[in-house]
Amino acid sequence: MSTLVTFGETMLRLSPTAGDRIETATQLDFRTAGAESNVAIAASNLGCEATWASKLPDSPLGRRVTREVRSHGVETHVAWTDEARQGAYYIEQGSQPRSTDVIYDRADAAITTATPADLTDGLEFERADAVYTSGITPALSDQLEETTETLLERANAAGVTTVFDLNYRSKLWSPAEAKACCTSLLETVDIPIIAARDARTVLKQTGSDEEIAREIAEAYDAEVIIITQGEDGALALEAGDGDGDDGILYDQPAYPAETVDAIGTGDSFVGGFLARYLEGDERNVERALAYGSATAALKRTLEGDLAVVTPEEVEAVIDDADGGIAR
Amino acid sequence: MSTLVTFGETMLRLSPTAGDRIETATQLDFRTAGAESNVAIAASNLGCEATWASKLPDSPLGRRVTREVRSHGVETHVAWTDEARQGAYYIEQGSQPRSTDVIYDRADAAITTATPADLTDGLEFERADAVYTSGITPALSDQLEETTETLLERANAAGVTTVFDLNYRSKLWSPAEAKACCTSLLETVDIPIIAARDARTVLKQTGSDEEIAREIAEAYDAEVIIITQGEDGALALEAGDGDGDDGILYDQPAYPAETVDAIGTGDSFVGGFLARYLEGDERNVERALAYGSATAALKRTLEGDLAVVTPEEVEAVIDDADGGIAR
Amino acid sequence: MSTLVTFGETMLRLSPTAGDRIETATQLDFRTAGAESNVAIAASNLGCEATWASKLPDSPLGRRVTREVRSHGVETHVAWTDEARQGAYYIEQGSQPRSTDVIYDRADAAITTATPADLTDGLEFERADAVYTSGITPALSDQLEETTETLLERANAAGVTTVFDLNYRSKLWSPAEAKACCTSLLETVDIPIIAARDARTVLKQTGSDEEIAREIAEAYDAEVIIITQGEDGALALEAGDGDGDDGILYDQPAYPAETVDAIGTGDSFVGGFLARYLEGDERNVERALAYGSATAALKRTLEGDLAVVTPEEVEAVIDDADGGIAR
Amino acid sequence: MSTLVTFGETMLRLSPTAGDRIETATQLDFRTAGAESNVAIAASNLGCEATWASKLPDSPLGRRVTREVRSHGVETHVAWTDEARQGAYYIEQGSQPRSTDVIYDRADAAITTATPADLTDGLEFERADAVYTSGITPALSDQLEETTETLLERANAAGVTTVFDLNYRSKLWSPAEAKACCTSLLETVDIPIIAARDARTVLKQTGSDEEIAREIAEAYDAEVIIITQGEDGALALEAGDGDGDDGILYDQPAYPAETVDAIGTGDSFVGGFLARYLEGDERNVERALAYGSATAALKRTLEGDLAVVTPEEVEAVIDDADGGIAR
Amino acid sequence: MSTLVTFGETMLRLSPTAGDRIETATQLDFRTAGAESNVAIAASNLGCEATWASKLPDSPLGRRVTREVRSHGVETHVAWTDEARQGAYYIEQGSQPRSTDVIYDRADAAITTATPADLTDGLEFERADAVYTSGITPALSDQLEETTETLLERANAAGVTTVFDLNYRSKLWSPAEAKACCTSLLETVDIPIIAARDARTVLKQTGSDEEIAREIAEAYDAEVIIITQGEDGALALEAGDGDGDDGILYDQPAYPAETVDAIGTGDSFVGGFLARYLEGDERNVERALAYGSATAALKRTLEGDLAVVTPEEVEAVIDDADGGIAR
Amino acid sequence: MSTLVTFGETMLRLSPTAGDRIETATQLDFRTAGAESNVAIAASNLGCEATWASKLPDSPLGRRVTREVRSHGVETHVAWTDEARQGAYYIEQGSQPRSTDVIYDRADAAITTATPADLTDGLEFERADAVYTSGITPALSDQLEETTETLLERANAAGVTTVFDLNYRSKLWSPAEAKACCTSLLETVDIPIIAARDARTVLKQTGSDEEIAREIAEAYDAEVIIITQGEDGALALEAGDGDGDDGILYDQPAYPAETVDAIGTGDSFVGGFLARYLEGDERNVERALAYGSATAALKRTLEGDLAVVTPEEVEAVIDDADGGIAR
Repeated sequence: MSTLVTFGETMLRLSPTAGDRIETATQLDFRTAGAESNVAIAASNLGCEATWASKLPDSPLGRRVTREVRSHGVETHVAWTDEARQGAYYIEQGSQPRSTDVIYDRADAAITTATPADLTDGLEFERADAVYTSGITPALSDQLEETTETLLERANAAGVTTVFDLNYRSKLWSPAEAKACCTSLLETVDIPIIAARDARTVLKQTGSDEEIAREIAEAYDAEVIIITQGEDGALALEAGDGDGDDGILYDQPAYPAETVDAIGTGDSFVGGFLARYLEGDERNVERALAYGSATAALKRTLEGDLAVVTPEEVEAVIDDADGGIAR
Repeated sequence: MSTLVTFGETMLRLSPTAGDRIETATQLDFRTAGAESNVAIAASNLGCEATWASKLPDSPLGRRVTREVRSHGVETHVAWTDEARQGAYYIEQGSQPRSTDVIYDRADAAITTATPADLTDGLEFERADAVYTSGITPALSDQLEETTETLLERANAAGVTTVFDLNYRSKLWSPAEAKACCTSLLETVDIPIIAARDARTVLKQTGSDEEIAREIAEAYDAEVIIITQGEDGALALEAGDGDGDDGILYDQPAYPAETVDAIGTGDSFVGGFLARYLEGDERNVERALAYGSATAALKRTLEGDLAVVTPEEVEAVIDDADGGIAR
Repeated sequence: MSTLVTFGETMLRLSPTAGDRIETATQLDFRTAGAESNVAIAASNLGCEATWASKLPDSPLGRRVTREVRSHGVETHVAWTDEARQGAYYIEQGSQPRSTDVIYDRADAAITTATPADLTDGLEFERADAVYTSGITPALSDQLEETTETLLERANAAGVTTVFDLNYRSKLWSPAEAKACCTSLLETVDIPIIAARDARTVLKQTGSDEEIAREIAEAYDAEVIIITQGEDGALALEAGDGDGDDGILYDQPAYPAETVDAIGTGDSFVGGFLARYLEGDERNVERALAYGSATAALKRTLEGDLAVVTPEEVEAVIDDADGGIAR
Repeated sequence: MSTLVTFGETMLRLSPTAGDRIETATQLDFRTAGAESNVAIAASNLGCEATWASKLPDSPLGRRVTREVRSHGVETHVAWTDEARQGAYYIEQGSQPRSTDVIYDRADAAITTATPADLTDGLEFERADAVYTSGITPALSDQLEETTETLLERANAAGVTTVFDLNYRSKLWSPAEAKACCTSLLETVDIPIIAARDARTVLKQTGSDEEIAREIAEAYDAEVIIITQGEDGALALEAGDGDGDDGILYDQPAYPAETVDAIGTGDSFVGGFLARYLEGDERNVERALAYGSATAALKRTLEGDLAVVTPEEVEAVIDDADGGIAR
Repeated sequence: MSTLVTFGETMLRLSPTAGDRIETATQLDFRTAGAESNVAIAASNLGCEATWASKLPDSPLGRRVTREVRSHGVETHVAWTDEARQGAYYIEQGSQPRSTDVIYDRADAAITTATPADLTDGLEFERADAVYTSGITPALSDQLEETTETLLERANAAGVTTVFDLNYRSKLWSPAEAKACCTSLLETVDIPIIAARDARTVLKQTGSDEEIAREIAEAYDAEVIIITQGEDGALALEAGDGDGDDGILYDQPAYPAETVDAIGTGDSFVGGFLARYLEGDERNVERALAYGSATAALKRTLEGDLAVVTPEEVEAVIDDADGGIAR
Repeated sequence: MSTLVTFGETMLRLSPTAGDRIETATQLDFRTAGAESNVAIAASNLGCEATWASKLPDSPLGRRVTREVRSHGVETHVAWTDEARQGAYYIEQGSQPRSTDVIYDRADAAITTATPADLTDGLEFERADAVYTSGITPALSDQLEETTETLLERANAAGVTTVFDLNYRSKLWSPAEAKACCTSLLETVDIPIIAARDARTVLKQTGSDEEIAREIAEAYDAEVIIITQGEDGALALEAGDGDGDDGILYDQPAYPAETVDAIGTGDSFVGGFLARYLEGDERNVERALAYGSATAALKRTLEGDLAVVTPEEVEAVIDDADGGIAR
């Protein structure tokens, strides 16, 4: 088994039943979610040894988070504090023409004060196969921007594969702020994952999705560049040697899915990709891309952010199972 | 803010979860609903100052109704009585090919004894901008037929805009009874709202939907005639001066919607229409029609009869938002 | 197995969760209940072959009733009609100092029009071992008063043991009305069951509970007189020959119980009493009285009106089981 | 009313809410289901007098089963035992691309020890109009294979119409085992019902669906052969005299349905078919086939295995009702 | 009807089912609560015209609050803002020996920025009969301390009865901080309400409960001093003229209650007291004290902070109703 | 942190809401439970590093178990198999006079085939501080009896503290069978834990609880003997050197508790005892006994078998906190 370490914020997730509104609800489903724990959970459910590092308030709310993360077999490495709050978000599922509504209540969460030491003391961080975080983490506070930079640099220096999903959140920072920070971080990233939409909004790229991948390949020294395309699937560019070798481009359409809950789809893609990509000695981009897409498709059929799926189910999607009833 | 007064019956609404049947259910969702409070609630949620007048039993069941109506910011003007029951209806959501089933249990409800004084004593009825009721109200009892007639006349005489949705219910009266009553009431109505289907069944009209609108314009002295067309949208005919001026016809297609619960769609249309139509000094039929349709589309995505929506959401539908996730 | 026929009204029973109020509830438990079906169900669950006869609307609401009654093994003998409603009641569990609140919504229920033929055509009524109804039945309508009288007379004439629980409901009639009707009915009753409280309120008796029993024994030609005493238990007076033989008095204290829901306790007592009393050839008042009390105590621990209990459980209560955990 | 006897296993059915997974669920819906009780329940709800015979543990779990079966008006004829367990199955609804997952936990259920006497002592088995079981029953144990064979033979000898749905379950036996057993049973079957898919997998037939029906007609002495085709509907071949008379073939497309829960669809088809086919003096294959298909379509709109539907609803589907709202 | 204005924070209230823990819960009840809206709601439910003034985020979470407050007939006077969050608290009901656990998540709530203008612009504040706030309000921020002081002064100057419940919260400030602020505020308070426990902890008083009341009467120019004593009830000292007239002391024991949820009991006491005290022309301390205590006892039987009770129920408690079943 | 290894069966736990019966329930709470995982979970929640070893079916049902165990921070060491089922039990909470009813459905569970290698391969079993199992484990199968014996011997030989709770289950074996097996196992046990009731039923001891402890001390070479006394608390006898030194007896009364769910109380006692006893260098029987009792009392206030409690809560019980509200 490979080892993946992710770090970032995990929030409480509060949601009314589909068809009900937050402002009239009298009961809420109570879950937890966060890009980096979502990725660790998806990867762990698919057989990857994963650890999630974070900072949480030492309270039932903080423990609510670690319990759920651990239940998926993910190790939790948590700096507990008495001096900050637990972030939360409220989510109301939409249906056409009503939008899905996300209300963040994450200001001043414990994670925003996390130093590199908070996240890694006592964790064999430099011995992981890969380290993952998303662009949400540096967006949360200046301290976290510094912490993120330090940790990616340390991992990179130690030869750990660094994975970064730009994951732009307009409710957290402006495109310009995101660009300044992320372009700096990308210098130390082996596998950048960028939504084509974010590449245009934040990085101000203007070409086709493939051109976006190639421009990033040129600008940074990455191993694989992944461009996610929402309902259109994802591209992966396995970097060439740059010397006349432009690398290999893989184009993975999305698997059709009846969407019960779209939140967490992107994280499940990343978790599925990494679980397969890090497995074994030879890293196989094409197969990992299919794995990520199939994991994402399965996640869409489930309530909550989390890809509670098995490797067999992922493979059945890739092998085009018909989704019938087995009995 | 404009002021809308509606009067009519509000019932308890008892429904099993979708996919379950009343005859095997062990739990029921407990809501309240009625055409006239639905309209007031939709309008209130969209910024219109609204009052709902009715008669209720002085019991927890009657108070269950006022609590829900008030929670939407609607003022309640209620004649409380110890001598009649609270109406209710049971609703079971269908899905193709199973019909949605509505079982009324509204006989002898308190409202059936409501006199004009019951509904308006202490209420500045003649100072409202508009008064609304539906064809359900006079169908409920002889007393209510008389009360409805009296109130529409009084409003009309006071220069209040009178709005009447024919809203034929075959479980309450026959087409002939409905026709006799409604054609009389329409004499004092400024804005008649009639489903094309009801125009044919009750009023025995036979032309196209547009022809129906024009025939009503000829027959009655209305300000705007609205013909609702179910999934096809709605027509509004802004009356001309009749002297070679045939008025202006607006044709509003329905906005596409994934239907969670269709009940209350028509009332939400009316509430949305009125909230916008009565707003400001200049009455804009076209914009109000779009508002009504968008409100109706949003309502379809929600459990229950009620349009729990904001003006921003209605405008987003009109402006063709994509119904994605904002975060 | 003996055969018991009961006839009377069964209502829908709608209740919020304990600690919630009807006027703020958003969900209701949905059950069915009625004195006569409660008695039949308790008896059936304890091994007595039982039939419940009634009149119901031919609708999902009426079928909701028969499904639940049948699920307890009781046969249903129903006159279906399209012309009346299904009665219901709302119940809110109190706790000190808040009263349990019962709101009847049973006016004009289908049962109120039931003739003797409605309830017995096609039913081998005169071949039953016992027939039971309660004072609620004649209180519901003039027709039902006549029907009750006719059926008790017919049963009596046929040698069927007639059982009648006075069961006074102040929301249905006045003490004077109840007295007039019930004293007439008692002429044909073999086993009158009367709450000591009702004996004082309705029959205007003033003595001790035992004196009440003896006065009834003198006034009517009964086989056994049962006086229920609420939390104090019950008395049974097995009638003597009147000629110096005053009969035998049994005094059964109530079994201690943690009350989850008190509604239906009295009916469970009757069902338990009859299941045991009618069993076998020799009618044993003392044992049946213990059976009834134990059934009532078990019922108190269950939500809903119904005694979903087994003979083994009843016997364990009588044998003073400690209510621990068996594993 | 006609009389249908079915025999077989009924299990507890445990399922999380749609969109949740068994491995993370904290609450399960609790129902009961089994091919033979499903058929009896569908038929009973459509007006056919039905009895279900089985063997169950004498425990609350066994009584949970009989209560639900009885609630649909089906008589239960049960051999109670203290020496075996109650079977159960867990079901998780899928949505594309995630399969619906069924986990059987039915090994060593009480039914597996059922002898012919267990199932029929005290039951007027030979006087039924029809007897039904499915291929699941003999698959459950050697004892049940013998019992099934004996009962079909006895019924056949007594002139009762025997109905057998092959209903292959790959989790219970291999195609070869199923073939050996079922081809033997089919000798005594009047109405074989076989999924086209099973005909190919188990019976190794290779022709078109019609050819399959005709081959079975040739091989066995059946009254009607029914080939179910999943989403394509069903064929029924009313057997001819074999002497140049090839019989009449009916082709019934499936009625379109929004599927809430597909489990139990086949059983509902059979129950609907039999309710209509056995009704009256003249057996009408074509009408019964439509009845079965419409019952199946309605079942698809309901949670659980059971066709809780009325004859009126079935006829409305056949008459192409539009599935709207009646009020 | 009298008019009561209260101002302060109302939070979302999130709670698992009794017997479950926050850290393992998967569903939460979703309510709203806050001392000042609790008081307004209790008073309104008992017939007092009440307005609650506050500041809330313009979001579904803020609207969730106003909807619930309005549903109880309380008018809401809200300053909406886009720049602050909605406070919340999590509550887990304990049972011996496990404490009830309250986790506040209220830092930086919108209310903390409320100026006097935010709370009163457009509100006929000085024309109220009484104004109420609690010691929680000034504890929330420096701005709110200033706002509270200003509003109590303005009300006092305008002749409005000012009511202040010290309501010490150790999670918000220290005893010393509370003392400094509250002793200053008490200068302008007509009806101080102080828990005996808080008088000792915060005000450093050391005498008996009666002595505490008398010391406060001497120190401040109050109309009535109320000392709450938890399970022991409450004292009220109607101030004398100070000149040999020591005033009248009323001692009200608590009414016995089975506690379902203790949170909000104190606020219900205040709401009940004020509803009765402000009613009519002559202010009756003794009767109002009984009213407050009975309201508090009823509240204890209800889930949530809110006294959803009627005047009839309060009077029944005072008149020593037996808490039985009325039917 | 110390290290505790427990091994044994964990079942699915299915339960209706309190006040409902299994035979009429339509929804079940879905949890997991088993003596040995209960002990590991209680200990882990109190800060002890714990591992639970078992054998499970490789299915969603088996994974349901590991997810819940892991969520409490316990490591799971599981032999997965495709060839056996997942055990379950149904539990219905009683209340006086109705017993709590437990229905085991655990025959042929995967664990029954577990060899020593299944449970310990890959686990540093001999390096644990303590190993725990209960008398339930050897009762489940002959294989498990052998496995239990082997593992206790191996642990004992390796110097690991062996802990064994006799935990007699009459539904699994007879007293004679239990005695034969357990007296043999006790030879290798350092800390036997025996309910006084089981000592009498199984071991046929007849003295006082203290005499029971002393007899066991004489018969076996134990470090501490614990006699649990149900509602009376527990005794612990710290063994002396046998040479005139009779050891020290500690008598710990049970802490008073309002019982929500009694199941799992004994396991919580053991988990609490071990968490404290194994902590630090010096083993303190007296303090550990108090810890165990307080953990058990807290568990009684929670639904489910599991002691979801913190060390602070346990200490608060010992320090006699009043169980009020902290805010």
